[in-house]
This record gives sequence, structure tokens and C-alpha cells, in this order.
Amino acid sequence: MEYFEIIKKDEHSCARTGVIHTAHGDVHTPYFNPIGTKGTVKSVTSEELKFWGAEMILANTYHLWQRPGDALIYKAGGLHKFMNWKQAIFTDSGGYQVFSLARMRSMDEKGVLFRFDLDGREALLTPERSMQIQTNLGSDVCLILDDFPGYPFERKRTEESVERTKRWAERAVTEFMRIMTKDNPVNPGQKLWGIVQGASFEDLRKRSAEQMRALDFPGYAIGGVAVGEPTDQMLQAVDYAMPHLEEEKPKHLLGVGTPYDIVQAVSRGCDSFDCVIPTREARHGKLYISDKTANGKDSYKTIDIRKAEFAEQFTPVDTDCDCYGCLNHIRAYIRHLFACDESLGIRLATMHNIKFYLNLMGKIRTAIQYDYFDDMLANYKDRTEDTLEL
Amino acid sequence: MEYFEIIKKDEHSCARTGVIHTAHGDVHTPYFNPIGTKGTVKSVTSEELKFWGAEMILANTYHLWQRPGDALIYKAGGLHKFMNWKQAIFTDSGGYQVFSLARMRSMDEKGVLFRFDLDGREALLTPERSMQIQTNLGSDVCLILDDFPGYPFERKRTEESVERTKRWAERAVTEFMRIMTKDNPVNPGQKLWGIVQGASFEDLRKRSAEQMRALDFPGYAIGGVAVGEPTDQMLQAVDYAMPHLEEEKPKHLLGVGTPYDIVQAVSRGCDSFDCVIPTREARHGKLYISDKTANGKDSYKTIDIRKAEFAEQFTPVDTDCDCYGCLNHIRAYIRHLFACDESLGIRLATMHNIKFYLNLMGKIRTAIQYDYFDDMLANYKDRTEDTLEL
Repeated sequence: MEYFEIIKKDEHSCARTGVIHTAHGDVHTPYFNPIGTKGTVKSVTSEELKFWGAEMILANTYHLWQRPGDALIYKAGGLHKFMNWKQAIFTDSGGYQVFSLARMRSMDEKGVLFRFDLDGREALLTPERSMQIQTNLGSDVCLILDDFPGYPFERKRTEESVERTKRWAERAVTEFMRIMTKDNPVNPGQKLWGIVQGASFEDLRKRSAEQMRALDFPGYAIGGVAVGEPTDQMLQAVDYAMPHLEEEKPKHLLGVGTPYDIVQAVSRGCDSFDCVIPTREARHGKLYISDKTANGKDSYKTIDIRKAEFAEQFTPVDTDCDCYGCLNHIRAYIRHLFACDESLGIRLATMHNIKFYLNLMGKIRTAIQYDYFDDMLANYKDRTEDTLEL
Repeated sequence: MEYFEIIKKDEHSCARTGVIHTAHGDVHTPYFNPIGTKGTVKSVTSEELKFWGAEMILANTYHLWQRPGDALIYKAGGLHKFMNWKQAIFTDSGGYQVFSLARMRSMDEKGVLFRFDLDGREALLTPERSMQIQTNLGSDVCLILDDFPGYPFERKRTEESVERTKRWAERAVTEFMRIMTKDNPVNPGQKLWGIVQGASFEDLRKRSAEQMRALDFPGYAIGGVAVGEPTDQMLQAVDYAMPHLEEEKPKHLLGVGTPYDIVQAVSRGCDSFDCVIPTREARHGKLYISDKTANGKDSYKTIDIRKAEFAEQFTPVDTDCDCYGCLNHIRAYIRHLFACDESLGIRLATMHNIKFYLNLMGKIRTAIQYDYFDDMLANYKDRTEDTLEL
């Protein structure tokens, strides 16, 4: 059995449906990973996630390394056992948070010297250390430590990051193979994926993709996106990288995005996603709901459930939704919970937005399967009033 | 069918098992009401509460009056519909929070003039207004507005409170009957219970009990307890009131208490309870777990899951517990969630403590049914190290 099987290719775009056979079950693609930063998808249980159809979640290496520590999680039998999540886990390398959260001290060929944000403890993140942590966590998909430029993109810095990412990738592969064959890894079925860098430079994305391809990873992530660049540059980065990666391997788009972004990226061949949007925005009362275009096509918009206009609406958040909140509660009640700062409000909102995203991925897979993904692609846009110019 | 049926009387104490037939289902007594202050038992859903066996919850009139307002809840079809809780609801009169939370302005025979804590809005709580609010909420058991002294108890003030509570009770009954017969109440099966005051004065408890009895309420609450007095004074208040209330009517002990308090009060004839202890303490990581006495009898203690000693304990919080957290998660993980301030930690802790209390009530009912409640009464004490002198 192939690690990744393509089930159906769209005739009008690069979209496809498939299955990644991980060591903790199948992941049906295109797929969206809910974010479980610190070993918990904020406010919801593993049982709920599984019930809603989640097949993989993303956990953050940096956060778990800092607390409770990868050695403790290894002792507990790995992250699956520690948090009691029996399906697949995707981990990043820790590099992104070292740049965004930690106080970076210096970076050289060896790795990144930084101080943890919580206690100021100094630590060195190297390609090898990232592998050691991720194998201690025992995720199903782990990533190489990469170097990437911030936005706005500068050519010289981007070129440097591409070359360093290549050298770090080689070191990561060597260390990963050593651990998997000589140590006692908690997840012997763990897979290491490469990361393509190159910002929005066509030749650099090509070069990085070819470098990763040379290392024969079972899958790839498109990195260096969702760092502040406009949507069109993000999609361009995908366009530049894709032709140089094997069609038959799964591709993950790191940190993306809105439902619109996801549909667009799927049409370019991306198979999986992760993003804090549904969970983070839920915590601020921003809820994704279904909407129709003028010609009756499926689309979506967002509402801020905290607004006074919902105080006396005795109907569900989204009558098309099958999440727990929409099946059991009215808008007026959820608004009341937010007004009172009651945690059940955040919980219901989080459940709703995750279900919205998981349902979206199901709609995408069905659209590809039944040959109307081109129609979905043309119409699936955010129809919230202040974003209609999109 | 009687409103309250006694199923089994204990031979060695005043304990008994029974059923209150409310308009929203049966409540098996002795029973503990989880606290749903603002129309939500903090962090848990109605579905979960029902699954764990909750048959009634307590909601606070003061909080819901303040926000979202009883008029809005009436429009939504009552509190059961507003919060989607299909079992029974018990409401207090609002009086307790007017004293504890609001800025009281003045109190006279008419009622209590105060300012709401959230917005400083001035409002008058009268015996009639409390009835109007509680019938708008449509709870299954509602209470008269009472007047009660704080601790330490003073005889003159207590006597005054007993007499005022009697006069207010008469006004409450008149208004309640008017609403139930002339208005359009959301819950036509709602019942109004009286409240016995009298602090720890034997003759005043007797007088108040007789006054309430004269009004022929279908049930009574013992009030003016859990206001700061020692446990023995609280139990004494129960002892003083009980002989003067009809044996065949249900009695609720307001705001009590620890598992120890509850077992003691059950032996004195109390049928139902409400207390913030299990939910409030859960939010601070204090968890109730089963324990055994030296001679192998069932008992309990508490642990603070935030302590370092639990960091590497890969076993459930309580191996005797059947809550979601104990069946699915390890102490090390729940400690990690608390260390990271992750709301799932509070949620799992809340579920655990509520389940502990509901299971305790089940154990009490079984002990009465099978004639070993005297044994339970003798041994069921808090065995937490720093409380063993109890």
C-alpha cells in the first residue's frame, strides 16, 4: 500500500482527493488540521474531535518542548498517549515559534540560539534537536527545521534561507534515520516531510523544491507562507513550487488559511492545511456560517456573535450546520455566554468553527469526487459585508 | 401521584430516599444540584450533565435578572429553552446575591433597594418582583424572597428576619398564585417552596418552621446557613428546624456543602443540596477523590492537581471514578493543562468534581436503600492530610 493514494483528480484544476495512510489511521485529503498547540485543541476533547471527523491535528513542537518537555512526553509513551488522541498528529519543527515568540539570540549554521518566552531559559534549536524532540513526541508527520525570511521578501535573504534549509534538511534526515533505526522511538511509523522555501521568487521556489525532491521525502510542506504576505503572493508561492514536486506525494500548506484561501490552494494541488483561524477567531466570537451567492451557489460569511443584534435571535448560529451548538442552542444563548465571559461560549464557538472547517473539507472532497469543484472554486468566497470586495 | 414520594426511610437516622416529581422529570433524593449560576454550569454542556445523571440544576435569579434579563428569557420560552436544559431547574429568590454582590442601598418592609454589580443600575427587589422574575424563568422549584442575618448571629436581628420572612412569604404566595392563574407562565408546573430562617436559635427556627408550615408549601428550604458559621452550628440549625416541618415534604439545604456536610445533613432528613464547592474548587485544580479509612471503609480526600508531585503520574485522577477525565486522561496531562491555563483542564476538573458529587449522592441513596447508611455516616470524612483533625 502506498503511503499516499490519490483517489480522484479534478479535470479542471490540480485538485485531487486522496488518503494518507499514517501510523495512526487514514487521513482523507484535502484535509484541515485543527490546531492543538500545547497538546490540546483549546477547550474541546479528543472524543469530540473524533466524533466530528477529525483525522489529524497539529501540535506545536516549540510549546511542548518548553512545557511539559519532550522527555516527559516520551516517558508517558508519546504525545498520543499523553493527550489521549488516537488519530494522527502532525508536528512542526519548532522553528516558527523560535522566531515569533522566543527572544532570539543568534542564528548560525549550527542552529538558532534563543530564550524561551516563559522563563527566559536559553536553548539551542538545531536540525538534530528538532528531530529528537519530534521523535520523542512521536507525531505521525514531522517536519525538518527550516530557515525562512519574513515579509516583505528580500531576494538575497531568501536565497540564503533556501540554501540553509537544504543543508539543515540533510542533517535532519541523517538524525531522523539514526533515531528511527538505533533509538527506541515511540512511533516507529513516524514520517519526516521536507519543507519548500523560496518566498515569492519563482526560481528560488523551483530550486528549493528540487533540493527537497532530491532527499526523497514522503511528503512536503510549502513553507514561508502566511507570514504577512497578501493572498495572491501566497498562492503564487504555491504555483511556483508545485510543478517541481512529484504529483504522487502529499503536500501541506503551512499556516493557511481562510476558507477562501483553502479552496484556492486545493485547486493548485495542496492536500492538507493547518491554521489557527477557526479556533482563535471562535474565542473572540467570530463564527463562520454558510451563505449563498446571488445565483444560489454555496458560499460563506462570518458573524460576530457578541453583537447586540443577536440578543433576541432564537435560532441556531447556522441552520445548515450539524455541530453540537447549532443542533442544541440558539444565538441569543451563545451571545449571552460571551457577554458573561462564560467558557461554554468559547467552547461552543470553537466546536462550531472547527466543524465548519471540517465540513468545508468534506464539501471540497465531494465536489472533486463528483466533478463540480470548478463550480465551487468560482463561487466559494467570503460574503461578510465588509469583505465582499474580495 | 404525590409531588414527593418517600421510597425508603433509614432505620437509624432521619435519612430517606425519595422522588420529587417535577414538571421537568423526576429528581431522585437525596440529590445534589450542580450550580448553573448564569444559565450554564460553567464549561459543561446540558448533554454532559444529563449523561452523568444530573436531574436538576440550580440557576441564580439575581444573575439572570441582571443579564440577559428575565423578560428576554421569557420571550425565549423560559430558561429551559433558553439554555436547552430539559430536566428540572431550581432557582433561588435573588436575595442572597443582593446582599453578597450588589451594592445595597436600603431595605424596608417593601423590599430591598440596591444597585446591580455590573452596571450600577438601581433596582428594587420585592417578594413580588422575585416571583415575577422566577416565573419568567420558569424554573421547577422557586423560592420566596427571604430576609436573613449574617454571621455571627444576633438574636434581635434574627427574630426580625424571621418575622419579615413570614410577611414576605405571604406576599410571595399571593403573587405566585396570581401569576400562575391569571398570567401566561412558561412553566405551569412550577412550585414555590418556603424558606425556614432562625439562625442557630432553637425557638426561632421552630417559630419560622411553623410559620412556613402554615402557608402549606409543597417543599421547604433551610436558609440562613452557609453564611460563615461553623459546621456544627449549620447542622444544629437543621436539627432545630426539622422536627417542625412535615416529614412527607422535601427539604432543601441552601448552599451546603462539602461531601462530609452533605452526609451529615442527609442523616438529619435533608433531601437536596446545592453548592459551588465542586465547580468552584475544580477551577482552582482542587479535585475530590475516593479514599479508604484504616479499616477499609469508603471515604474521600482532595488533591491539588497543580502540584509538582503529579507531573509524572501517568494514572487517572481517581481510579474509582467513571467521569470522562478519569476514563480518558492521566494526572500528568491534567496537571499540564492547568500549568498552561488551558480551559480543557478546568473543564475536565469540573466534570470530575460534579461526577464525584453525583456519584456520592448515588452512594448515599444506595446506602439508605440497603441499610448501611449508618456505617457510611460514621466513616465518610475528608481524609486530606491537613483536614484529618475533622
